[in-house]
Amino acid sequence: MSLTHSAQGDLGQLLAQRTGRGRSDAIRQILAAATAEGVLSLAGGIPTPDSFPVSRITAAMDRVMAGRAVTALQYAPTEGVPSMREALARLASATGASVTADQVLVTSGSQQGLDLIAQVLLDEGDSVALEDPSYLGAVQVFRRAGARLLPVPGDRDGMRTDILAERLSAGDRCKAVYVVPHFHNPTGSVLTPERRRHLAELSDRYGFVIIEDDPYADLAFVGSRLPSTDLYGERVVRLLSLSKTLCPGLRVAGLVAPPALIGELVTAKQCSDLQTNTLGQYVLSELLADPEFLPGHVRRLRQLYRSKAGALAGLLHERLPWLSFDEPRGGLFLWCSITDPLVSADRLYPIALAEGVAFVPGSPFCVDRAGAQQLRLSYASLDAAQRSKAVDRLSVAFGKALADASRPDSRS
Amino acid sequence: MSLTHSAQGDLGQLLAQRTGRGRSDAIRQILAAATAEGVLSLAGGIPTPDSFPVSRITAAMDRVMAGRAVTALQYAPTEGVPSMREALARLASATGASVTADQVLVTSGSQQGLDLIAQVLLDEGDSVALEDPSYLGAVQVFRRAGARLLPVPGDRDGMRTDILAERLSAGDRCKAVYVVPHFHNPTGSVLTPERRRHLAELSDRYGFVIIEDDPYADLAFVGSRLPSTDLYGERVVRLLSLSKTLCPGLRVAGLVAPPALIGELVTAKQCSDLQTNTLGQYVLSELLADPEFLPGHVRRLRQLYRSKAGALAGLLHERLPWLSFDEPRGGLFLWCSITDPLVSADRLYPIALAEGVAFVPGSPFCVDRAGAQQLRLSYASLDAAQRSKAVDRLSVAFGKALADASRPDSRS
Repeated sequence: MSLTHSAQGDLGQLLAQRTGRGRSDAIRQILAAATAEGVLSLAGGIPTPDSFPVSRITAAMDRVMAGRAVTALQYAPTEGVPSMREALARLASATGASVTADQVLVTSGSQQGLDLIAQVLLDEGDSVALEDPSYLGAVQVFRRAGARLLPVPGDRDGMRTDILAERLSAGDRCKAVYVVPHFHNPTGSVLTPERRRHLAELSDRYGFVIIEDDPYADLAFVGSRLPSTDLYGERVVRLLSLSKTLCPGLRVAGLVAPPALIGELVTAKQCSDLQTNTLGQYVLSELLADPEFLPGHVRRLRQLYRSKAGALAGLLHERLPWLSFDEPRGGLFLWCSITDPLVSADRLYPIALAEGVAFVPGSPFCVDRAGAQQLRLSYASLDAAQRSKAVDRLSVAFGKALADASRPDSRS
Repeated sequence: MSLTHSAQGDLGQLLAQRTGRGRSDAIRQILAAATAEGVLSLAGGIPTPDSFPVSRITAAMDRVMAGRAVTALQYAPTEGVPSMREALARLASATGASVTADQVLVTSGSQQGLDLIAQVLLDEGDSVALEDPSYLGAVQVFRRAGARLLPVPGDRDGMRTDILAERLSAGDRCKAVYVVPHFHNPTGSVLTPERRRHLAELSDRYGFVIIEDDPYADLAFVGSRLPSTDLYGERVVRLLSLSKTLCPGLRVAGLVAPPALIGELVTAKQCSDLQTNTLGQYVLSELLADPEFLPGHVRRLRQLYRSKAGALAGLLHERLPWLSFDEPRGGLFLWCSITDPLVSADRLYPIALAEGVAFVPGSPFCVDRAGAQQLRLSYASLDAAQRSKAVDRLSVAFGKALADASRPDSRS
């Protein structure tokens, strides 16, 4: 639409003409509130700083700056620095089908991987199926791309692929199916091998792309992680995140895509930000060049998070009988239900914040379902003393919310 | 469009359904060829490694890793690390209207700034006016956003704002005008104060946003840089690049935008990549905290590039009489015309490459005009011996191209 002269051309109006890309972001406000002075946060999915291999990263950085400083500060190819592409190909091959470096695109975090896939794959009005509830960052990307969301219920074993199959058989179509196969955010579910296989069959049959977003896979508390869906399907784009296993602040991640997609993704990446920061790629590929490092580090991480998860679960069982949840199997989150119908998570949230404890209410993660009784707790950040105090504050907050809700005039 | 069963759903077809976002990128191939073994490159706009303040960056990095390693490796706000926003606000204020940190968004290079502005501002079919020829990375972003390009001729003094005014007065409309005000890529033009003021008046009158992309501003060979357009207009988004003044490999840049836009840009950034890498922000804000550093470094840079530019210009005058160009005033490029109509830049290019010297033909930068006789030479990368050899190779290549073109059967 064209702009008319003078006063009419103001910025507010320019923006008001836009097509709804500017929805305000509830969860950003929630996470901002969680970092306020005096608030103990069970909200963010932020890895604990104890988990960062600081001395190893510093040593790798020193080696890079001593030997290749000028290269590490210069422009690099859009696809990624060769050693980083190779490192990511090795990581991907260790837990899935064999991957070569030319199938890897280095991205500025997995979030960029999602955004690039949406750019390359989706046109306005295309459908994307995804588990309901789902990772909010993915939902936002798909919505911004103009996609219609096809929410599919899940359970402890991940997306109900039988329900997806029914819908496809009834005529629904989608260009992509988005899954977080291991320790799903927010639900903690793990997609079973049977459902992975089923999903791959459906992908073959209906021609959709499987977007496999798998940042928590290494954080399994028991046994070893399951293989990736790419063992079973040829239309899989895998996002490889290092944010939860190494650290998030370097913003170096990658994706593995079939040859038919990778060229388009590189072009999209070039338009988006030319390339991922060179220094971070050299530092992480230097670190990952030691084959001993990552397996040992991941063992330590699993131990660390298993202990944090167990401790939080124990406290919740003991002190918050109104909260139900599945025992954590990996990842960073507990997905909980408030069993008392008088108190919703949205109602509890501001009272908890006033008591000095933050969590994320379930509703922002939900597409179709209400999620009013759900909430997500992260055990990643707090130490033992903080954890205990946070649970006590939640208990006090719940008491107040219940008292509030039980007053005769409160249900209006 | 919906996908049908079985074999029809293959990836190639998925992509073939897309709406023309996948145009292959001529300049990427040109720049890739320029890095081949034995090729002397006058092609890329890549800063010379001599210009990187390596020891200062290393020292800043050491201080960050000694004092704040965990914070520098952790997630950071989408808007940017506060000290980096403040550093960018100080830089912007030094050469334009007074800017506060809350008007600054840290971006993953200026390229991302362009992409975010396009996301927030442009709908399919909106027009963007820009100088013809223009920076290809910007052209690509606007095209991907579905914008129509409104090319406006330029000269040594930048965009012909009188021609833009005529078109607007005749009924053309645009949502944004894109300018590279100092030492334009590829032409080297500098927008005069009169035209800046005129552009700001037009922006007020017609309500378009001025996108000011200014990576070369500090690289003035004589006098001091001119103030930014934001002195004259309230609808200006300024892109602040550090790639040519510090180094490109950290991918830390910023943009300054009016309050009405900044929130939308932050939301777009969050979807695109959550945040710019934390480490790079801490390192550069640490470096820029010393107020003495940048002015001295920039003085040295100007000297360095002035001397390189002068040396290349001298050699061209001496040995390539068939090439005409304006004397360089700043930036990284010479925009040249081949004066012999028998030889076009596209014809010369493969012959030059075979001789072991690369440049960028003009046509990829051009929107409407042909640019067949133009080419862009960068004086940034080569040292004195390489420069001399590169010019000799260009001379040989031209001789061969001319001989080729003069053969009776060659004009078919």
